[in-house]
This record gives sequence, C-alpha cells and structure tokens, in this order.
Amino acid sequence: MDARVGFIGLGRMGEPMVRSLRRAGFPVTSCVHRNRAAMERLREHGVVEAADSAAVASASEIVVICVPDAPQVEEVLFGERGIVHGAKPQTTIVDMSTISPIASRNFAKRLEAAAFHFVDAPVSGGPARAADGTLTIMVGGAAEDVARVEPVLRAMGTPTHLGPVGMGETVKLANQAIIAGVMLANIEALVLAKRLGANLDAVRKVLATATASNYLLEQWLPKTWFAGTFEGGFSLDLLRKDLAAALDAARVLGHPMPATGLAYQLYTTRSAEGDGALDYSAIAKAYERNDTEVVTRHLP
Amino acid sequence: MDARVGFIGLGRMGEPMVRSLRRAGFPVTSCVHRNRAAMERLREHGVVEAADSAAVASASEIVVICVPDAPQVEEVLFGERGIVHGAKPQTTIVDMSTISPIASRNFAKRLEAAAFHFVDAPVSGGPARAADGTLTIMVGGAAEDVARVEPVLRAMGTPTHLGPVGMGETVKLANQAIIAGVMLANIEALVLAKRLGANLDAVRKVLATATASNYLLEQWLPKTWFAGTFEGGFSLDLLRKDLAAALDAARVLGHPMPATGLAYQLYTTRSAEGDGALDYSAIAKAYERNDTEVVTRHLP
Repeated sequence: MDARVGFIGLGRMGEPMVRSLRRAGFPVTSCVHRNRAAMERLREHGVVEAADSAAVASASEIVVICVPDAPQVEEVLFGERGIVHGAKPQTTIVDMSTISPIASRNFAKRLEAAAFHFVDAPVSGGPARAADGTLTIMVGGAAEDVARVEPVLRAMGTPTHLGPVGMGETVKLANQAIIAGVMLANIEALVLAKRLGANLDAVRKVLATATASNYLLEQWLPKTWFAGTFEGGFSLDLLRKDLAAALDAARVLGHPMPATGLAYQLYTTRSAEGDGALDYSAIAKAYERNDTEVVTRHLP
Repeated sequence: MDARVGFIGLGRMGEPMVRSLRRAGFPVTSCVHRNRAAMERLREHGVVEAADSAAVASASEIVVICVPDAPQVEEVLFGERGIVHGAKPQTTIVDMSTISPIASRNFAKRLEAAAFHFVDAPVSGGPARAADGTLTIMVGGAAEDVARVEPVLRAMGTPTHLGPVGMGETVKLANQAIIAGVMLANIEALVLAKRLGANLDAVRKVLATATASNYLLEQWLPKTWFAGTFEGGFSLDLLRKDLAAALDAARVLGHPMPATGLAYQLYTTRSAEGDGALDYSAIAKAYERNDTEVVTRHLP
C-alpha cells in the first residue's frame, strides 16, 4: 500500500511536485504554509488540507519539506506547531529544500534523538521538470531510510543516493556553485561576442558542438535572456542564498573559492539593483549597455 | 579537381589536421616551422615538403595556417620568407589559429591590399577530434571566400560561417572565455564536495542530469583531473593567451569581464607555479590540499 505522504511548502517547486505524487497515486496531506491559492488548486487534485505542519505530520508516514532555506526548515520541523509536535515515532522526514549540508546534518541529529528518520533530497531541474516528474534528486541518508522513501522520490524524478545525511545537499550546492559560474562565463563571453557583431543564436548553435557546451547556454538562456525575459526560471536571490551556503561550508573547511566568491558578489550587486526576484540570467543586465550598437568602429 | 593545399604549423593540432586533408585526397605541401619530426611522419602520408612558407604558398591555391598566436601568424604571412612572398595573386589564406579578432581583421586588410583572400577559421575539439576530422570550425570571411575553402574545411570537421572576417575568432574567443570559467566553477565546487566526502565519479554522473551539466565535467575532467593526469588536453598557457586576447578586445570595447579577468589571474598564478604546459584542469592543484582528508570532523 502506498505510504501516506505529508508535504509542506507549496511554492513554485512544491506545487508541481505534489501533483506528481498525486499522479502516482500517493495520498497527500498538506497545509497552507505561505500559499493559499496553491492549496486550493491542489485540493481539486485530491490533496487533503490539514491545519499546520504538526497536523500534516500526524496524518503521514513520510513527511516531505520543500521550503526556501534552513531557517524555514527549522521552523517547519521544530517550531510551535512544527512536525516534531505531531509526528509519530519512526516517521521519516525528507527535506527537499536546498540548504547547507551543515544545517542538514544538524537537523538530522536532533531528529534522530527524537526517534525520527531524516533524509536530505534536494532537486535540480526547475518548475518544468517538477511538473513532468523528471527532477534530478540528490539523496543523502542511511540506506534503510533512503529505501523507505524511494517510491515517493521516484514519483517526482530520479533519485540518486550519494552518501550519508548531508550528501544530497553537498552535491546540490556543488551544482549551484557550478551554475553560478557557468552563467557568468556564458554572459561575459556572449555579450562580448554580441558587441563585436555576432548573432547569438548562431553562436549558441556552434558552441553546443564545441568545448564550451553547457546546459545553461543550450536550454536555459534561450527561454530567458535570449527570449528577452527574465521572468520564471530560478530567482537570483535563491541562487545567492545557495552560494552563501556553499561559501559558508567552504569557510568552515578552509577551502578557497575565489571565482564563486566573486560570483556571489556580482549577483548580490545585481540584487541590490532591484533584480533579486528575476531569473539569475538577469545578471546580463550588468553587462549590456544602453548604447547597444555593434562597436566595429573600434576595430581595424 | 581538389585544390592544392599548403599547410603551415604542424603542432599538436596541425599534424592530425593535415592527416585528415590527406585522407580526403587533398594534395598537401608543408614545411618545417618548428617541428621536424611531424614533417617526417607526414611525408610518409604523401605530404610534400617545401623549404619555407613562401615556397609552400607558391605550390598552393589555398594556404592554411595553424600556429599559436598573432605574432606567429604575422611572421608566417609577412616575414622574410612568408606567404606573401610566394603566393600567387588570388590565393586564399585560411588562418585556423586562435588569435584576437582585431589582429585577424588587421591581417585581412593587409592581405586584401595585396590581392589575396583571407578567411579566419579557428577550431574547437582538441587533438582527438582533429584526428577524427570532426572538429568544430568557426568561420569568418566573405561568402565567396568561405565557399572556396569549404571543401578543405569539411575534410577537417564541420565549418559554420558566422559572419565577416574576424567573426570566427570572435566566437572562438567566446568559447575560450566560457571554458575558462566553466573549468574553474567545476573545480571549486567539486573540490568542496570532495572535501565533504563526496565520490566525484558519482557527483559527475548525477550533475550530468542537472542544471550544472557541461562538456568539461562530463568529457574533459574524466580524462584529466579525475584520471590523475594533467598531460595532454589543452595547455594552460594557451588558454591564458586566448583569455588575454578576449580581455584585450573587451578593453577596446569598454566591456566588463570581471569573472573572466579573475580567471585569467588565477590561471596565470598557476602558470607562475610552473604548470603552464599542463592541461588547464591543472588549476585544480591550486585547490587541493596536501592534507586531503575528508573534513567531516568540522561538521556536526
């Protein structure tokens, strides 16, 4: 019989992830965390509404969390009407938020002391792949805990078990540090080419067959910067939050990340300009000039 | 009838490119530029040896150049026994070196004044794809000049005509600026994950399905850093030369490239440590510590 699943966090990722769970036949209980409208839409898909996180947990064997950052995870877990106040012993809690692996391991220790199981399972792929149920899911946890939640994760995408608690978050932060740098590299190079007269669509096609080939250039930028919009996608401020977590972990370890450190500062400068809610490709606005003329007049 | 091709520059790229031309049936004349051994090997493949660049040019309708940088191109073109002193009028010169588009346009002007045609056609793919004749070739030039040399380029890979003279180099420099940043992003993130206990082979596989997916992570690093070798590949000092050209062009245009500027400085620091001849993934040596223990002792 399918496990009863609780789901907390009905944001741009959480809502389509819950739909995937319903499509796969899981009974799902949720509550309004920040988003009343999403709850209403999901009720039409058979999701049962509970009063709060504690009530969601008491109705569930597996509780999934998908919120922005560690403080929200902590509130959902240990706050006044948090999961620990409603969950039965041996409940398995799956945190699909992207947070610091240090915070993740900390939460796991506190939950284990209270006889709960914990798995970290952050995702990559964005709202489109969340809707399709084809997310990449990076999983950390004890083997038996991961096995228990695997059917639930499979309903949302492809889970890969990467190590003990915290390892899902570790690999996700690696993904985030990489995309921050890859986006910057693409944009610095492409604005240069554009100002020298290149057609960016032709450049994208040829670079897809060259050593610069990367997912963001081929799949992400055509829907955002190239399409003249920075709406949708993945918000610059959420990327900043993930970079801050990676840089915090690096600081604890004495690991140098000069390029990632600069990337954080550049995205933060863009956020200070008021663009934090836009897709992070909006960093292009820092490079494109108002006088966008092709500058071959400077050339021989 | 196949055009008679001259080829100058029998380095790690030039030698396999000449073999591709021979495989396709082109008669090829070359000369010893820096590499006597390569010339000897190519003579066994039917390449005719001439005394110098001028003599190569006088035996050819199309002359291909593949040397490290603009000063070498200038020497091969205009030096004492350079191409212009042997070539017949209307000869087409194809520069497959990676140099500044500003230098490229400059050379084209001087050659046109002497009744020669010029096409820039730098490549991406490295020695392996040079050997297979499957290089990505980025082409700039007048349509009729590009059409004339297209069969020659097709013998070495897939040419894409991107615009007037200089546009091949412009797009190639964009490729180089991107790979410089993508390599750094991969390595800063992966060394962090490794020090937190991650298995890099597992990380590579899962990130290949995530937004961080990129060619260098999936195809380049398994043959270099992950394999414990920085031999072969693409030398860090040649990448520095390309970044310098991109940053020079950016300076002319007033285009900011803070991340690429930092990348240049980091690779240059590595070169100063004596690693300039290694594959540019050797930048990893700046991040890996001698005490490579997994540092979970810092973690909760």
